[in-house]
Amino acid sequence: MITGKNYIGSDLSALGKETYTTFDPKQNTATDWQFHEATKDEIETAALKAQEAFLEYKNYSGARKAEFLVAIAEEIEALGNELIEAYTRESGLPEGRAKGERGRTMGQLRAFATLLKEGSWVEATIDTAQPDREPLPKVDLRKMLLPIGPIGVFGSSNFPLAFSTAGGDTASALAAGCPVIVKSHPMHAATGELISSAIVKAAERTGMPEGVFSNLNSSGIEVGKQLVLHPAIKGVGFTGSIKGGTALYKLAAEREEPIPVFAEMGSINPVVALPSALSENGTDWATKYAGSITLGAGQFCTNPGLILGIKSESLDQFIKTLGSEILKLDPSCMLHPNIHSNYEKGKEELSHQGGIDVVADYEADSAPNYGKQKVLTVAGADFMKNPKLHEEVFGPFSVVVRCDDANELTAVINRLEGQLTGTVLGEASEFESFSQTIDALQSRVGRIIFNGVPTGVEVCPSMHHGGPFPASTDSRFTSVGTSSIKRWLRPVSYQNWPQEYLPDALKDDNPLGLMRILDGEHTDSKVG
Amino acid sequence: MITGKNYIGSDLSALGKETYTTFDPKQNTATDWQFHEATKDEIETAALKAQEAFLEYKNYSGARKAEFLVAIAEEIEALGNELIEAYTRESGLPEGRAKGERGRTMGQLRAFATLLKEGSWVEATIDTAQPDREPLPKVDLRKMLLPIGPIGVFGSSNFPLAFSTAGGDTASALAAGCPVIVKSHPMHAATGELISSAIVKAAERTGMPEGVFSNLNSSGIEVGKQLVLHPAIKGVGFTGSIKGGTALYKLAAEREEPIPVFAEMGSINPVVALPSALSENGTDWATKYAGSITLGAGQFCTNPGLILGIKSESLDQFIKTLGSEILKLDPSCMLHPNIHSNYEKGKEELSHQGGIDVVADYEADSAPNYGKQKVLTVAGADFMKNPKLHEEVFGPFSVVVRCDDANELTAVINRLEGQLTGTVLGEASEFESFSQTIDALQSRVGRIIFNGVPTGVEVCPSMHHGGPFPASTDSRFTSVGTSSIKRWLRPVSYQNWPQEYLPDALKDDNPLGLMRILDGEHTDSKVG
Repeated sequence: MITGKNYIGSDLSALGKETYTTFDPKQNTATDWQFHEATKDEIETAALKAQEAFLEYKNYSGARKAEFLVAIAEEIEALGNELIEAYTRESGLPEGRAKGERGRTMGQLRAFATLLKEGSWVEATIDTAQPDREPLPKVDLRKMLLPIGPIGVFGSSNFPLAFSTAGGDTASALAAGCPVIVKSHPMHAATGELISSAIVKAAERTGMPEGVFSNLNSSGIEVGKQLVLHPAIKGVGFTGSIKGGTALYKLAAEREEPIPVFAEMGSINPVVALPSALSENGTDWATKYAGSITLGAGQFCTNPGLILGIKSESLDQFIKTLGSEILKLDPSCMLHPNIHSNYEKGKEELSHQGGIDVVADYEADSAPNYGKQKVLTVAGADFMKNPKLHEEVFGPFSVVVRCDDANELTAVINRLEGQLTGTVLGEASEFESFSQTIDALQSRVGRIIFNGVPTGVEVCPSMHHGGPFPASTDSRFTSVGTSSIKRWLRPVSYQNWPQEYLPDALKDDNPLGLMRILDGEHTDSKVG
Repeated sequence: MITGKNYIGSDLSALGKETYTTFDPKQNTATDWQFHEATKDEIETAALKAQEAFLEYKNYSGARKAEFLVAIAEEIEALGNELIEAYTRESGLPEGRAKGERGRTMGQLRAFATLLKEGSWVEATIDTAQPDREPLPKVDLRKMLLPIGPIGVFGSSNFPLAFSTAGGDTASALAAGCPVIVKSHPMHAATGELISSAIVKAAERTGMPEGVFSNLNSSGIEVGKQLVLHPAIKGVGFTGSIKGGTALYKLAAEREEPIPVFAEMGSINPVVALPSALSENGTDWATKYAGSITLGAGQFCTNPGLILGIKSESLDQFIKTLGSEILKLDPSCMLHPNIHSNYEKGKEELSHQGGIDVVADYEADSAPNYGKQKVLTVAGADFMKNPKLHEEVFGPFSVVVRCDDANELTAVINRLEGQLTGTVLGEASEFESFSQTIDALQSRVGRIIFNGVPTGVEVCPSMHHGGPFPASTDSRFTSVGTSSIKRWLRPVSYQNWPQEYLPDALKDDNPLGLMRILDGEHTDSKVG
């Protein structure tokens, strides 16, 4: 049952008078769930509980935290159809997607549990003493990663499960040993409350300290700001718009004690179609990209919003096929009327820029809030002149840029802001003649793909989901995959520390059996 | 020969009319070297050269960059006595220190060269494809660390070699594959120019691209600000004051493209003397700490500025001995009249706070610019009431805080800002009864030391030199040791990328023989 209340630790709380509802975009009507905006006092209590919980939780073993994460996955599954119904109702996304995303969310939690049980993620590094070293003896030094403190998490609208309440940010922070306070996404507050109830239940069942998790409702920006400014909060995870992420980043930098903000933001994910891709597989790629552009109503941060090619008959043919293929697809419902109207506005604005031609524009009637696909094309010179054309239009939309030659292609890429992904289509044999283009693309992106589509983000150790600004605020960290735990950790060195009081990860006899760096060598051996 | 010019890449340049000199604090007179303040045009040229150099330098093999770093060490050594003379003249530090620091600087460069030649620092991670996976095939994904771009480096006054022109920031950035532009420290501009000449010579000798290094003179803040704001600069390393580091950090966060600033700043390095340390070894520790507090005229970021103990006869005795021992030592010359006068001012201010008693105050005459040691004491309650007493006084100075009991000791530590180091003196058998105190200390620091002094920072893989704000602006990174390279790197994933165009670190046959993570296992095996 949806209560509309905040979770302040394990307490359901509704001190505030202000309420808001979520929206069912398919029915085009508000839901009947009322959510209580979190108050200042509730934020304060959640923050203090998190601070208190951290004192205990940071010292829990990997096995114990793993138990908690697995329990969260189990409790999410136990929510059963109530979760799937709330998800589909609040997002307009289909049931298959809801179940797939739930699987991914549970998979992420379990992947972190596995990481914790294995344990080597703490990067234990040991340099043993050399008491006889000249001119000065060398001390015994041992280093490992420790959690930084309570983390504030802002979920994204487009992944109500995998990038929200119990998504990658929350899972990675809890795995690191950091309590989490979620600022619930107002578009899926019921989904968020259900997930929160699962987390709280899991925390109670596995004996976690109260306050290890809280969930704050809010439809505005004030609650989020107060959360980021609270001295107890030591880091922030955010997935969403460039505007929102940058604002939080700057707010955190202005704190008396600045804290890291990891924001994964916008991207248009350039795709470079080399000549052979168009001449030999143009129809195939056009069909695949029609699918990728419209997947999930184009509401993916890795949506291919920019396709680059060199002027040729085969490029013209590709554009034509892309246009006809994409019009064969049925539009889907977008997440929310606001997202739909922003999409319409963005489409409209870009359609009226200089040099733009319309390739495809789905015009048939459809239900309210459905995102109708559109593809534009423009010459390289016009694209470079106009930064407006670099902006992400969140929805089933893409721009094909026709460049004069490889040099112009490279120049277009060099003008682009940082991107989550970049894709190259073609033959490896063309890499030599396009080495500058490919080098330019690689230096703008966090993930570079050959002969594929950027949508579909594998959760595995080799995934990097992030990129130069504005794809993310800190290109050194990923928000997907187990390496995302690194955002919430800091190294601490122990000098000449007594064996029995060292963390297990650093003890001579390696009781956890970790892979460590011992006097410069990777090994799972004991010391001495 | 000192020209007083800037190095804009390998060109000596003096477009500006404004000049300044450095100062010989022992002679208490300006040197006769005139330095030309870098102009806007010179900054612009240096930045563009760095950007251009990056396109090549980022792709150089580890072996080739290692050759460059070793050549820098050799060219520094080849500067011979001219360097030692400029160093001692501009810093007032003795010849032995100059030679020791030179050795450390060359050692750091060589340590990074060794890291590069071994190669596993790129954290190569490979997840092979699973084309038959259900419901969706798994792509081939491979990830490694790549350099982020040109770095601006601000050296510190107190380490004219090891934390300046060719110090840890420069060495780690060059090792990462990032060109460096140094904003030369105005107190040792001649030392900086000599080191720059060595770097430029080494770059030419080993065939590095022009612009891989530049050195900008400046006595004010304008040049540094322009450097941090230049779009070509992608990261900043700084060692110095909280005020300076925080200003650069905020400036960088306000850029259109925010960039990471790693600033290592102030610290008072609390030392907790447990009862047994005082009752059994009080005299020993007092003597050792008298030495640690006055080492290098107290001009170390790890100087023990705060000693905490529980009220007892043995604490009184310790304080007395510390006072008498420290007065036996001769004061040394400080780096600059400005640093000396700031020290005098800081000492004076803290001496007049409520509840302060003077333990030791060196009053005999000494030469100008010599830092006369002082030790104060205050009760825990007074210390907690007054944040002024938490401020770093840069010089041979310390405050002993007398706490009522373990609880007050813990409370004092919980009020402290982040610190580079924390130290515990005593017996391991006391850890149980002081577990909260020690836990509190560990959570405020980057390095925790048992029965030692915080001064003396070992350069090795297990060293963490950094800490929660304001010890550094990003507690997740160290500025000392080979891990400091991580500040200038970002992961990039290659998806389904053709073997022959993968970086060597990610190729199937592991041509560099790296330790990699292959399908979740640490191994130096080939793929397949």
